[in-house]
Amino acid sequence: MAGRNHLYIPGPTNVPNEILNAMHINMEDHRSPVFPKLLTPLLQDLKKVFKTETGQAFIFPATGTAGWEVALTNTLNPGDKVLIYRFGQFSHLWAEMAKRLGFDVEIHQEVWGKGIPLDRIEARLKEDTNHEIKAVLATHNETATGVTSDIGGVRKAMNAANHPALLFVDGVSSIASLDFRMDEWGVDGAISGSQKGFMMPAGGAFLAFSQKALAAVETSTYPRCFLDLKDQMNTNKDGYTPYTPALPILYGLRKALDLLQEEGLENVFARHHRLAEGVRKAVAAWGLTTCAQPGFESDTVTAIIVPEDKDARDVISTAFSRYDISLGAGLSELAGKAFRIGHVGDMNDVSMLGAIAGVEMAMLDNGFDFKPGAGVAAAIEYYRSTAN
Amino acid sequence: MAGRNHLYIPGPTNVPNEILNAMHINMEDHRSPVFPKLLTPLLQDLKKVFKTETGQAFIFPATGTAGWEVALTNTLNPGDKVLIYRFGQFSHLWAEMAKRLGFDVEIHQEVWGKGIPLDRIEARLKEDTNHEIKAVLATHNETATGVTSDIGGVRKAMNAANHPALLFVDGVSSIASLDFRMDEWGVDGAISGSQKGFMMPAGGAFLAFSQKALAAVETSTYPRCFLDLKDQMNTNKDGYTPYTPALPILYGLRKALDLLQEEGLENVFARHHRLAEGVRKAVAAWGLTTCAQPGFESDTVTAIIVPEDKDARDVISTAFSRYDISLGAGLSELAGKAFRIGHVGDMNDVSMLGAIAGVEMAMLDNGFDFKPGAGVAAAIEYYRSTAN
Amino acid sequence: MAGRNHLYIPGPTNVPNEILNAMHINMEDHRSPVFPKLLTPLLQDLKKVFKTETGQAFIFPATGTAGWEVALTNTLNPGDKVLIYRFGQFSHLWAEMAKRLGFDVEIHQEVWGKGIPLDRIEARLKEDTNHEIKAVLATHNETATGVTSDIGGVRKAMNAANHPALLFVDGVSSIASLDFRMDEWGVDGAISGSQKGFMMPAGGAFLAFSQKALAAVETSTYPRCFLDLKDQMNTNKDGYTPYTPALPILYGLRKALDLLQEEGLENVFARHHRLAEGVRKAVAAWGLTTCAQPGFESDTVTAIIVPEDKDARDVISTAFSRYDISLGAGLSELAGKAFRIGHVGDMNDVSMLGAIAGVEMAMLDNGFDFKPGAGVAAAIEYYRSTAN
Amino acid sequence: MAGRNHLYIPGPTNVPNEILNAMHINMEDHRSPVFPKLLTPLLQDLKKVFKTETGQAFIFPATGTAGWEVALTNTLNPGDKVLIYRFGQFSHLWAEMAKRLGFDVEIHQEVWGKGIPLDRIEARLKEDTNHEIKAVLATHNETATGVTSDIGGVRKAMNAANHPALLFVDGVSSIASLDFRMDEWGVDGAISGSQKGFMMPAGGAFLAFSQKALAAVETSTYPRCFLDLKDQMNTNKDGYTPYTPALPILYGLRKALDLLQEEGLENVFARHHRLAEGVRKAVAAWGLTTCAQPGFESDTVTAIIVPEDKDARDVISTAFSRYDISLGAGLSELAGKAFRIGHVGDMNDVSMLGAIAGVEMAMLDNGFDFKPGAGVAAAIEYYRSTAN
Repeated sequence: MAGRNHLYIPGPTNVPNEILNAMHINMEDHRSPVFPKLLTPLLQDLKKVFKTETGQAFIFPATGTAGWEVALTNTLNPGDKVLIYRFGQFSHLWAEMAKRLGFDVEIHQEVWGKGIPLDRIEARLKEDTNHEIKAVLATHNETATGVTSDIGGVRKAMNAANHPALLFVDGVSSIASLDFRMDEWGVDGAISGSQKGFMMPAGGAFLAFSQKALAAVETSTYPRCFLDLKDQMNTNKDGYTPYTPALPILYGLRKALDLLQEEGLENVFARHHRLAEGVRKAVAAWGLTTCAQPGFESDTVTAIIVPEDKDARDVISTAFSRYDISLGAGLSELAGKAFRIGHVGDMNDVSMLGAIAGVEMAMLDNGFDFKPGAGVAAAIEYYRSTAN
Repeated sequence: MAGRNHLYIPGPTNVPNEILNAMHINMEDHRSPVFPKLLTPLLQDLKKVFKTETGQAFIFPATGTAGWEVALTNTLNPGDKVLIYRFGQFSHLWAEMAKRLGFDVEIHQEVWGKGIPLDRIEARLKEDTNHEIKAVLATHNETATGVTSDIGGVRKAMNAANHPALLFVDGVSSIASLDFRMDEWGVDGAISGSQKGFMMPAGGAFLAFSQKALAAVETSTYPRCFLDLKDQMNTNKDGYTPYTPALPILYGLRKALDLLQEEGLENVFARHHRLAEGVRKAVAAWGLTTCAQPGFESDTVTAIIVPEDKDARDVISTAFSRYDISLGAGLSELAGKAFRIGHVGDMNDVSMLGAIAGVEMAMLDNGFDFKPGAGVAAAIEYYRSTAN
Repeated sequence: MAGRNHLYIPGPTNVPNEILNAMHINMEDHRSPVFPKLLTPLLQDLKKVFKTETGQAFIFPATGTAGWEVALTNTLNPGDKVLIYRFGQFSHLWAEMAKRLGFDVEIHQEVWGKGIPLDRIEARLKEDTNHEIKAVLATHNETATGVTSDIGGVRKAMNAANHPALLFVDGVSSIASLDFRMDEWGVDGAISGSQKGFMMPAGGAFLAFSQKALAAVETSTYPRCFLDLKDQMNTNKDGYTPYTPALPILYGLRKALDLLQEEGLENVFARHHRLAEGVRKAVAAWGLTTCAQPGFESDTVTAIIVPEDKDARDVISTAFSRYDISLGAGLSELAGKAFRIGHVGDMNDVSMLGAIAGVEMAMLDNGFDFKPGAGVAAAIEYYRSTAN
Repeated sequence: MAGRNHLYIPGPTNVPNEILNAMHINMEDHRSPVFPKLLTPLLQDLKKVFKTETGQAFIFPATGTAGWEVALTNTLNPGDKVLIYRFGQFSHLWAEMAKRLGFDVEIHQEVWGKGIPLDRIEARLKEDTNHEIKAVLATHNETATGVTSDIGGVRKAMNAANHPALLFVDGVSSIASLDFRMDEWGVDGAISGSQKGFMMPAGGAFLAFSQKALAAVETSTYPRCFLDLKDQMNTNKDGYTPYTPALPILYGLRKALDLLQEEGLENVFARHHRLAEGVRKAVAAWGLTTCAQPGFESDTVTAIIVPEDKDARDVISTAFSRYDISLGAGLSELAGKAFRIGHVGDMNDVSMLGAIAGVEMAMLDNGFDFKPGAGVAAAIEYYRSTAN
């Protein structure tokens, strides 16, 4: 089909041509004396995106899923208890991973559409007077429901409970696009991936760990090798890697960090908020609602609930086959009930208006009832009133 | 600014990544025995886009402006009379070129917004009983006004006048996106460029000449060298070029021809018509008019007339600086009075909806009076009703 | 420094521009209905490179190190005994990994320069009458020493011992460049990576498992998640992946498989042999020896032993800093004693002559004693006499 | 054939991947307010490569052949007398162009292998007391014979004759790789192209003209349009172009200029000299001679004369088909008598050693009589003794 596919899934996101070019490189010797000139600044600058000065950043030639595993297997011991609030497919998958890896996973079910309940987590941690819970697993941005949790609040709850558990955060679809403050919020392990806010293809897991977490690495007896943090630390300190690095990921990250710095992280966050808000205005104009309940709306992805007599899969299918738009599907219990518009990464106003207009066509084709152009009009008015 | 610039000028147009990749090549020896395997099929397949079997295609490492010059200086003699109807900036420029090159240029001014007047050209040629007019210069698609002329009609007029002049056609912004039939319409020289329907960067002039025109090349005494057709013919016949070819242009054209063939030329034309029609529905919904008068509307570019109290440059400037959309300016006498939306090349429905929505924002910001979303709504309804 | 760096390390290898272009892509939805059209043929065609019809191929967005881990943790149970012959840095690292992952690793030290001793492995397996050994780990091509082992011979030894252990083979630096016959040799798990014979950047682990190994996956209790084969099987069967795939790796592999098929696998093997043989002729002409003992020479990498009064690191350093050539270092116990020339991947005669000439300069600069040009002359004569 | 084609023709030369990436761009509006930020510095920085402060630089979307034409048709009047010394295919072609364009061309034949005879040009100009000669056309580096002329000497001869003719220099295969000093040498028009020292694909003609030449542009009556300098001046002054620019050429040039500046022009010249000298050492070791006579040897290309009983075309053909090396052919009267090794652009020692070794193979295959490795040995010794 002629014309670019219009990609509005919440990852992989649109990769700027500059980043693709930066990844189009001749190979080089990763054991050469000049290789550290690439890796060392990369690890330093990556810390800025996590907003950590005291922590340490890591790059694995893998994906965000591997990042989840790194956090668990490098800091905990087999059978350790971890606490997780589950409110979407990705928090579900992380919980499942922890179970499969042999941890004692205490799962609290939260309604899909809300985030981590701060009061209840505080209460639960207070109950844990023996400090059996070794880690809290928190999904910052639940990509499946378009919900953002208050990670600073989680830390406050932990502090209020005076609980020593480690705080691990899935920031795959938040870091580099939503405000994230590792040091300020007391995050012990933050996990991100290349294919969302970093605007790169998948294939890089970007992580940061606090000194407290790194101390736990020393004592963890969990078997691991490919995803071992100590191997990384031992080689990264001299600017090298424990095994062959994925060079395009490193060079792509160099460019991504440069682009983020050039725009300014706070401007990046503000842009994502504006773009998301425009989408939400359109949703309201269509007479629909988001999966996210008020106060939990994500600025990187919006899950839109369709009327009960509709199947969201039809919207996605029509959008893809008739209009070459890729939307995110409703996952698991949202299958058929919601579709998702990603507004993360290399996006601007007109990108989102294309998405909104395209979604309108797909919904109208499927008999949705609203005035054509209503969503676009609402978004236009919002974008105009907030443009620089 | 984050997010892709949204490019809606009528050239250069958006280059598909596949074509950019095809141009990202290691250099090679253009005198090697395998080079003809690239060039010879290219010249053959190029003929299909011009729809000529009896003519011959040519590639110059230059631009469409050079293509205009090739037609004039290779077939005519200094001082020869040429006839041109001028109805926009590009027909104006071609006429000016002919004057500067020392031809006797008879210019007939036509209103900007209409194309070549078939009745008047027939009348004029009938008057030319001595056949002093050696060539008719016809602009198929006037990019400045968004007007398409009836080239088949021009040929009929010439035939009705039984006039032997050569028919040269500027198809820079039509060929490969609008229906063009060199043999059927009796075109003697057709000029196109890489940066419009061929979806490539500028840097390639693509031409085709009839046997009648090629016979004229033999007798033309006009001095020329870089743009000489005989040098091309002498080397092209063995699969080579008279001087170093621009290899990326050749490899890009290979991919462009493959993409055009894959979609099917008739489908390409139909797609352009649909996209253009959607834009025109939006223009009407805004309460505005196109520069093109009924029956002359171009399917590759629409020039939109702004109300008298507005300056179209403000729309363009706002669109660019606030929303990262590039629109075409009104040229020459249309400066300030019109802006242009290009819908040529690698475009689809959502591309155009982005353009329309973005233009709405820029117009609203400049105090245009219409209901926000009106243009998008009109286009949505049209695209939906005509989508596959 | 001007001019391309001349890369002769045994991985990452030179990536053909066609593959880099194939990886330079717009992102797409990996859950779209067309995604299986990419993945399913890829997995099928990958099997051909492993030469397996009965086995199943897998792609992980990770590196060869991860591939080693996949084989161990998906088929064995914690504490299972594995047998490995260690004769270089990479067999050493695989053995270390197995220990770290909690397996009972029986390591037999072999001299660096030889491969797996077929008689002794047969004898050892015959002793293991209780079949405590669950897997034999065999390094097909030891990249550190430039030694190739006889994997078909290992299988024969296992058969002679009538031993049911699984046979896992590290083919990271052999598969797609050296003859490898998974089915014929009875390999149960074969591990390769993208950055050697596949001529891609690192970032892809390519694996194949026999039905016997896949049956073991069903019963293995080893905890795993990111590197789980069952998750792959469950999603691959429909053309999808368990988590976000690294799209550039998939598209790069598509092109790599096409290139391998175009050249023909047997031709690829023959080319590697010829290139390697030329290097070995040069080594002999220099009066030096390879680390590999006769009969064990690898066709993808040659480790060259320097005289006792020389430090191989000086050769490598001079080559890199003065002549922009990247050579492989001697690893671990070969540090300073050997340097390595990689001749794997996208290489031809002149590539190798550049390597040989460059190495001559670096050796002469470091006081090596041989007639300048001697190595090149020997290689020239060999290449000439064997060229097509 | 596997492995990179080894390209040693004197243009197009090897394009660094960084430049190819720089040319892999999204299109943009060449009439936007930000476009001058690209073009204006480009034209300024281009002047540095020509070493002119008082002159003006120009970029045409065309090739060096067009550059020749620009110089002639923009500054002279039809029928003007021009003086040219012909000593190779490219000086021949320029002379032929001047004739075809209607100038009165006085051609002095010089032996192929020598450059412009300074004494004779001075004598001839002194004879021209009426100053009928309006321009001297001087080929700085004759690519066909590998001969460099003394342009500073030509200017001295003109001054000695007190002759007011314009001095136009073909620097296509010299500028950006050989020392060139426009202002110091009093060059009035210097012509270069993108595909040699600028390390880009063909498609850009890069020119510089002195104020004296620009004054002549004002009075020239020669008809021209596509290649008109005044159109360029009128638009370049504001940062724009008279017609659609070839954006990849502009962005590629930006990167090329950055690379040249990074290495340092004088270092670039020194590198070319060293590389060339190594090739010449090899030629001598083979017992062969260069077409260039002593004192005229070019540092960008070497034409090597084969023994009378050999045909140089066989060497080229064998090199290409058996070893994937591209050499330059002997042109015109050198056809069969010479082959050429280009050593211009993005080259270093090992690149040249590959060329020399490859050429050895091709010559030995064709029965040339020399000791295998002799040429490589000679080059090795030279490169080693002069390396940094």
